[in-house]
Amino acid sequence: MRNILIIGAGKSSSSLIKYLLDNSSKENLHLTIGDVSLDNAKKIINNHSNASAILLDVFDKNQRESAIKKAAVVISMLPARFHAQVAKDCVTFSKHMVTASYISEEMKALDKDVKSKGLVFMNEIGLDPGIDHMSAMQIIDKIKDNGAKMLLFESFCGGLVAPESDTNLWNYKFTWNPRNVVLAGQGGAAMFIQENAYKYIPYHKLFRRTEFLEVNGSGRFEAYANRDSLKYISIYGLDNIPTMYRGTIRKVGFSRAWNVFVQLGMTDDSYTFEDSENMSYRDFTNSFLAYSPTDSVELKLRSYLKIDQDDVMWSKLVELDIFNPKKKVALKNATPAQILQKILSDSWTLEAHDKDMIVMHHKFGYEIDGEKHQIESSMVIKGDDQTYTAMAKTVGLPVAIAALKILNGEIKTPGVQLPITKEVYEPILKELEEYGIIFTEKKVPYLGYNPENVVG
Amino acid sequence: MRNILIIGAGKSSSSLIKYLLDNSSKENLHLTIGDVSLDNAKKIINNHSNASAILLDVFDKNQRESAIKKAAVVISMLPARFHAQVAKDCVTFSKHMVTASYISEEMKALDKDVKSKGLVFMNEIGLDPGIDHMSAMQIIDKIKDNGAKMLLFESFCGGLVAPESDTNLWNYKFTWNPRNVVLAGQGGAAMFIQENAYKYIPYHKLFRRTEFLEVNGSGRFEAYANRDSLKYISIYGLDNIPTMYRGTIRKVGFSRAWNVFVQLGMTDDSYTFEDSENMSYRDFTNSFLAYSPTDSVELKLRSYLKIDQDDVMWSKLVELDIFNPKKKVALKNATPAQILQKILSDSWTLEAHDKDMIVMHHKFGYEIDGEKHQIESSMVIKGDDQTYTAMAKTVGLPVAIAALKILNGEIKTPGVQLPITKEVYEPILKELEEYGIIFTEKKVPYLGYNPENVVG
Repeated sequence: MRNILIIGAGKSSSSLIKYLLDNSSKENLHLTIGDVSLDNAKKIINNHSNASAILLDVFDKNQRESAIKKAAVVISMLPARFHAQVAKDCVTFSKHMVTASYISEEMKALDKDVKSKGLVFMNEIGLDPGIDHMSAMQIIDKIKDNGAKMLLFESFCGGLVAPESDTNLWNYKFTWNPRNVVLAGQGGAAMFIQENAYKYIPYHKLFRRTEFLEVNGSGRFEAYANRDSLKYISIYGLDNIPTMYRGTIRKVGFSRAWNVFVQLGMTDDSYTFEDSENMSYRDFTNSFLAYSPTDSVELKLRSYLKIDQDDVMWSKLVELDIFNPKKKVALKNATPAQILQKILSDSWTLEAHDKDMIVMHHKFGYEIDGEKHQIESSMVIKGDDQTYTAMAKTVGLPVAIAALKILNGEIKTPGVQLPITKEVYEPILKELEEYGIIFTEKKVPYLGYNPENVVG
Repeated sequence: MRNILIIGAGKSSSSLIKYLLDNSSKENLHLTIGDVSLDNAKKIINNHSNASAILLDVFDKNQRESAIKKAAVVISMLPARFHAQVAKDCVTFSKHMVTASYISEEMKALDKDVKSKGLVFMNEIGLDPGIDHMSAMQIIDKIKDNGAKMLLFESFCGGLVAPESDTNLWNYKFTWNPRNVVLAGQGGAAMFIQENAYKYIPYHKLFRRTEFLEVNGSGRFEAYANRDSLKYISIYGLDNIPTMYRGTIRKVGFSRAWNVFVQLGMTDDSYTFEDSENMSYRDFTNSFLAYSPTDSVELKLRSYLKIDQDDVMWSKLVELDIFNPKKKVALKNATPAQILQKILSDSWTLEAHDKDMIVMHHKFGYEIDGEKHQIESSMVIKGDDQTYTAMAKTVGLPVAIAALKILNGEIKTPGVQLPITKEVYEPILKELEEYGIIFTEKKVPYLGYNPENVVG
C-alpha cells in the first residue's frame, strides 16, 4: 500500500478525501488523515478500510515527523502559514508535497533543495488559485501555439450561494472562511493594467470600482479587483500584455452595499474595542458615526453616507439588524472586523439544505494575422450538499488528482511549482471534466478593455 | 564651562541654539553642535565663541560616545527613531537628556535605569507634543485643585502659514516636514470619546469628519482628529472624562479638498510606480482613475468624486497643476505619497519673505458645586522670518529652557518623563511668556461636546 498523508480534516478536505478513498483499492492507496481533532479525522474517513485517522498537531515535532516519514506524498490542507515546517520535513525525508495555497517566500526558498532531491512540491492547485491557473494557461498556450499575440487576459472567480438557496437581499451567504470575506481587499492597493494604463485602487474605493460580466447562462455578475494582478503577467508568460485584470465575483449590488461597511470602518482588524462583549449591534454601528445628543443612529448613517431611504442598500443594512439595541456582540476584546463577521454570520450562514455555487470566468483577447479575436471561457458549478460543496469539490479534487498523479509519476518535473505547465494542467483538467468541472468556451467580438463599448 | 551637546543642526534647532547661545556667557555654557553635515553645524553657530561644531554621525559609536561623554546634558533633535542609541549612552555615561519626540517603547524601557542614576530624561517638550501638554496641565491642575471635576478636554494645534503670506487657494504652505503632512492620519483609525461615546474614524473618512473652532481674534478654523486621543486620558489624569479629543488645525476648507487625494489613493506610501521618473503629473492623476478610451482625466476625476465644476475644491486641484501632461514627476521608484509631496512642494514651499503661524487652542469643561463651566485657552504665534519660524520657536524654546533648568537643578525629578508636572510646566511656561508664547484664556458658556448647540 502507498501511503498518502493528508494534514487537516476540515470542510475543505471532504471531496479530496472522497476522491482518494474511491480510488484507494484500484490504486493501492492507504490514507492517513491527521488533524488536531482525532474526532474530525475519524468522521471524515467514516471507517473506510483503506484509511486511518491520527491525532496530528503540526507544531509537535515528533507527531509531525513520524507521520511524514511513513508517507509517499504529503497533502497539507492547513492554512498557508502552517505549511513551512511540513515542507521542510518533506525535504528532509524526501517526500512529495501538495498544497492549495499561494507559494510563500519560505516555500519558494526550498526550490533548490526540492529539485536536487527530485521532488515535486505542487502548490496553488485548488480553485483560486488552482483551476484558474490551469484553465487560463490551457487557452493561453493554445493561442500562443497558433502564433497569436495575447492582448488581454481577465479572470474572475467567486464563491456564491446557488440561486435556489439565494434567500437574502445581499444574494450572498458564507460558503467559505467568513473572515477572509470580511478582510477581502485589505493590505494594499489593487493593481492591474488596462489598455497599457496601470491602474491603482485604494481599499476604500475597491468596492465602488466594480466591473460587470455576463456569464453564459448564469446572467450578470459584478467583480472587484484582486490585490495584485500585475504579478501574474510574468508567471503566465504575458510580458507586455496591454490588459491584465483578476477579480472576485459577486452578485450585482453586493459591492455597493458592502462599501457601507468599508466606509464606516467596520472591516478594520487593527484595534479592539474595550467593552465589545457588552456592546449592542446598535452601539457598534453608532461608534463609527458622529456624536449627537438627539439624532438617531439610522439618520446619522443615512446622512453620513448619503443613502436614500428607499435605496435597496438601506434595506440590506436593516436586514442585517445592525441597528438592534438589544442584540449583544458577546465577543471579548473584539476588532471591528470580528464583530462585523459575527453580525453577518447571523444572516449569512448556510442552512442545512443550502447549496453553494462557484463561478469562474476568463476573457482572452489576441491578435493573429492582423485581426483581433476574443474568447470567453466560463465554469459554473453547484455543490451537492453541505459536505460536498462546490467549494470543497473545486478546491479538493485538483489537489487529490495532482497528488495521485505525482505518486504515479505522471507529474514528475521536480521543484516548487504551480500548475501552469501542460504536464500538469492537461491531465488534471481532463479528469476534472469527469466530475462536472467543465469550462464552456465561446468566441465573442473583440472589444478589448472597453466595458461601455465606447468608440475612441 | 558646562557643556551641552545638541545633536542635529536642522531647521528645528535655530531658536533652541539661539536661546542657549544668548544665555551662554551668563550661564557659563559651552554648546557642542553635532550634525552629519559639519557645514550645517558651523552655519548655525555662526562663529559664536561659546560654541563648537563637530561632525557627528549618530550611528558611529566612537563619535557618538566621545561627544556624549563630554556633555552634561544631551539634546537630541533627530527624528524620534534615532534617539534610542543616544539615550542608552546617556544612561551609561550618566548624562541628562532632552527630546521633543513622543516617548517610544525603547525610551520608556530605560526609566528604571534613568531613575536609579538620578537622571532626568525629558521628552515631548516641543510644541505638539510639548507646549500642548504644559498649557493643558496647568489649567487642568488648577481646575482640579479647586475641587472641580473635569468633563471635557479638547486640544487643537496646527502649523499654518501666516495670513500675510497666505497666497494660495488651500490657505496652506509647508512650514514643517512635508512628508508628515502627506502621511498625516495614516496607520490606524482615529479614536476619541465624546459625551461618553467612544468614536472611531477610519483614515479614509478622517478629512470629512472635521470639527470647527473659533480662535479668539484669529477667526474660524477646522480640525481633523489625531490618531489616538484616548491614551492621553490616563496621562493627563482624566480617567472617566466624558469628552477627550485632540485634533490638527487647518484653515477652513483644507480638509475637504485634501480628502480628494485620500480618496484617489495619492497618499499611499506602501507601493512604488515602476516608471515614476517619466510619468507626467497627469499620468499620475490618471493612474487612480478608471481607464477610458475617450474621457478626459479631468472629467473622470470630477465624475468619480462628484465634484461640481464650480466648486472651489476643483480650483484647488487645478492650482496644483495635477493635470499637467508636460511636468514630469522626475523621481525614481517613487510611492504615490512621494509623488504627491513633490507636486505639493511646487506650490506650497515657503517663499523667502513668507512667515508661518502656529495656532493652539484648548477647551476645558468642568463641574463645581453642581454648576458646569467652560474655559477656552489659545495661543497664536507668528514666525519672525524663515530662520526663526514660529515652529522653530515653539519647538526649540521649551527644549532649550528645559535643558538649562535640568542643568541648573531646577527640574530634578529623575526618570523618563513628559512635561505634565508643575515642577516642569510652571517655570517653563513662565519663561516662554518672555518670548511671546502666551495663552489667552476666556470663560465661555458651558456647551459640552455639542457643536451644533442642539437641545437634547
